[in-house]
Amino acid sequence: MTQISTKPPSGMRDFLAPDLARRRHAIAVIRRVYESFGFAPLETPTIENLSTLLGKYGPEGDQLLYRILHRRERLARALEPKADGSRPTELDLADEGLRYDLTVPLARVVANYPELPAFYKRYQIQPVWRADRPAKGRFREFFQCDVDVCGTKSLVAEAEVCGAVATVLLELGFAKPGQPAGSFRILVNHRELLRAMVAEAGIDAALEGVALIALDKLDKIGADGVLAELVAKGIGAGAAAKLLEVLAAARAPGFLAARAGAATRPGSAAAKELVELLAIAAAGPAGPHLAFDPTLARGLSYYTGPIFEIAVDGLAGSMGGGGRYDGLIGMFTKRQIPAVGFSLGLERVLLVMEERGMFPPLATGPELLLCRFPDVSAADAIRVATQLRAERIRPDGARERGLRVELFADAPAIGKQLQYANAIGAPFAGLLGSDELAQQSLTLKKLATGEQKTLPLAAVAASVRSG
Amino acid sequence: MTQISTKPPSGMRDFLAPDLARRRHAIAVIRRVYESFGFAPLETPTIENLSTLLGKYGPEGDQLLYRILHRRERLARALEPKADGSRPTELDLADEGLRYDLTVPLARVVANYPELPAFYKRYQIQPVWRADRPAKGRFREFFQCDVDVCGTKSLVAEAEVCGAVATVLLELGFAKPGQPAGSFRILVNHRELLRAMVAEAGIDAALEGVALIALDKLDKIGADGVLAELVAKGIGAGAAAKLLEVLAAARAPGFLAARAGAATRPGSAAAKELVELLAIAAAGPAGPHLAFDPTLARGLSYYTGPIFEIAVDGLAGSMGGGGRYDGLIGMFTKRQIPAVGFSLGLERVLLVMEERGMFPPLATGPELLLCRFPDVSAADAIRVATQLRAERIRPDGARERGLRVELFADAPAIGKQLQYANAIGAPFAGLLGSDELAQQSLTLKKLATGEQKTLPLAAVAASVRSG
Repeated sequence: MTQISTKPPSGMRDFLAPDLARRRHAIAVIRRVYESFGFAPLETPTIENLSTLLGKYGPEGDQLLYRILHRRERLARALEPKADGSRPTELDLADEGLRYDLTVPLARVVANYPELPAFYKRYQIQPVWRADRPAKGRFREFFQCDVDVCGTKSLVAEAEVCGAVATVLLELGFAKPGQPAGSFRILVNHRELLRAMVAEAGIDAALEGVALIALDKLDKIGADGVLAELVAKGIGAGAAAKLLEVLAAARAPGFLAARAGAATRPGSAAAKELVELLAIAAAGPAGPHLAFDPTLARGLSYYTGPIFEIAVDGLAGSMGGGGRYDGLIGMFTKRQIPAVGFSLGLERVLLVMEERGMFPPLATGPELLLCRFPDVSAADAIRVATQLRAERIRPDGARERGLRVELFADAPAIGKQLQYANAIGAPFAGLLGSDELAQQSLTLKKLATGEQKTLPLAAVAASVRSG
Repeated sequence: MTQISTKPPSGMRDFLAPDLARRRHAIAVIRRVYESFGFAPLETPTIENLSTLLGKYGPEGDQLLYRILHRRERLARALEPKADGSRPTELDLADEGLRYDLTVPLARVVANYPELPAFYKRYQIQPVWRADRPAKGRFREFFQCDVDVCGTKSLVAEAEVCGAVATVLLELGFAKPGQPAGSFRILVNHRELLRAMVAEAGIDAALEGVALIALDKLDKIGADGVLAELVAKGIGAGAAAKLLEVLAAARAPGFLAARAGAATRPGSAAAKELVELLAIAAAGPAGPHLAFDPTLARGLSYYTGPIFEIAVDGLAGSMGGGGRYDGLIGMFTKRQIPAVGFSLGLERVLLVMEERGMFPPLATGPELLLCRFPDVSAADAIRVATQLRAERIRPDGARERGLRVELFADAPAIGKQLQYANAIGAPFAGLLGSDELAQQSLTLKKLATGEQKTLPLAAVAASVRSG
């Protein structure tokens, strides 16, 4: 029998305890902040019907979907020879797939549960799957941390999702509150303004989608790369150059205000919305971090209004993004429900935190390894471990959490047990012999210094906690 | 365009806020208890290579795997006509599948990371997927909560996983500590003892596997059902009846001790292990809940030693189970590594807790809806919301958590905003007019009683928390 590979599949990862400590730290902060903004939690299934997923992300997205193979009779039927000799298609072989983002499942949920509040604010922190080419920092299974507001066109919703994401980054330590930006920026643009620019460059409206997809790669492939892709997609070289030109001109100070004031020019209403959004959001935590970026495009096809992206100095690509998508929910229900959201990419956040040493000390693993001498039975060791793990009510009435205790399963020489305590990084070992047992006590050994003392069992937890 | 279905796929569920509050309550207790026993967290990818999964669960398990359809070139190649005219098989069309349990991924991980401790104790709380026929309380995506000890044959490991699971059930309120059992039992048996019984009944060793699968259904289909299935699987009616007879006889008090003492009889060593295990485990939290059940079989094929199952009065089927599997990790590595584990089924736990009203009050959703009068700008409302959400340092130096605040996005008549506060179940509304704004205050309205008072902003959080 050949040895089975023990690696996880390409682009996927196992998370051991130290990884999980860092992930859970970040997730706990994100969850707390999102809840403080009044967002309610949602979790949706890993698997969705393909009818839910297809046609929402654009053709590139559809190609990256993981699809679930039919089983038994349905698979057999799909594989039966066809009258015209054609081969089965992907749609013959599968009608379910894995979640590709958290926004489309949200749209389905809003359509499915009329009992949800009229202004449904939800957050969702779950993995998504994309069969993309794996690369450094790009995985096929990765976590998104989304906040969305459904049911209102008010720009307060935009300001709130930007504020929530900014607060997360502040609380994770990306910048100190009140400091004028620097370490992260929330770039803002508007799909209607982009549309006006594309028209201004003389690009046919039918090519607007491909123009935006090319533009979205600006920070990856540069202006020359974007020009080449625009031309490759059938846009004239003159129009392509003109597009980059009008976008560059839009970087001039005062551009937004001027365009907002020019009521007859295309994109004027969008510019006005951006001016208003920047003013409202500036009152919240996102304030100093917001910046208008006329070249920001976002790759997904469902955005209709303001769009956002987080830029961090030194990080290629973004740490998250979002925008308004007033048409998506209407693809699932006859009611037209406007919505706006922001998605943080957990792995990008963790990558930067790791590189910059932003994690606080994270205690994991057992606080004490319980070692027994051969004169103590397994049953007695279990009895003592049970006591140490239990919550205690102290004489003053306060509750004291029990310890995280690992019990060494066998009773080899104590030296060997202590070696293991060091190997797993336990800060303390508890030595249990028949004397300790008789006196309801434990000899506590601090592994870093070797010092040891014998204590009543009831005093062990407090002593371990005081270090 | 036909309307897309907005339901989740068959056997899958969306979890809205109240569901999640219950699930997270249970998961938090499980995680805390597992960590108190010294188990380290692990998370593995949703997708595994099929070579990892196939052949571990028995033929029924293999059939229930979700498989991922190949994409693009690999799919095209798989669908090319074959020289012998045969159709493509499942293995031609897929080489990845979804996680079916948490034990096989653990075995792969232990084989893959030699840096793990020699006695690797891990817990894992993640969903698994089985393409089973959905039924009441049976889902295709469901959570398992596993603890396993790898690297030792000591029965202390069995006692510890039983102790951890028993502590979870005690802390969730299934029974009071010290109370003599009653509301849940941990049934214990041994695969080697079952093997001896099967031989004693005169059943061919080659049919042992199918005999155990039939026996595993005893509580679902009764003795007659098991007899019929045994005969259908090719076991003689006489031997089938004899099997149930010897198992019934094993229920007699003193059976285990007698068999443990009869060193020459098959199953004697296994009986001895069970006697010892029951004695050791009795010293821990599982103590009063443990019971030997000679008919307990467990469906999975990888068990080799003691096996467990949780029985709860009034619940058809089990709430979890586990056992020793000393051969599984060796399927992934040349090292033979013994292991034992216990798996709690989260949905079963929640089902019983729901039916028995065992959940404490779980606060979710915003604590305050911030409503503004038309004379207050959106920017000013955001400024106040930001203050209410922020952690505060009180004059006495103590830290006070910020409030969970939803900001009403628009400014319609206050009555409408209050209506919405009631609809989402917010306990308080904060009314913000230009007077409040000028005085850095807020008018706090308790929605249950209608009483309202105007307070300095800095005093709002404390007032909301005091109810």
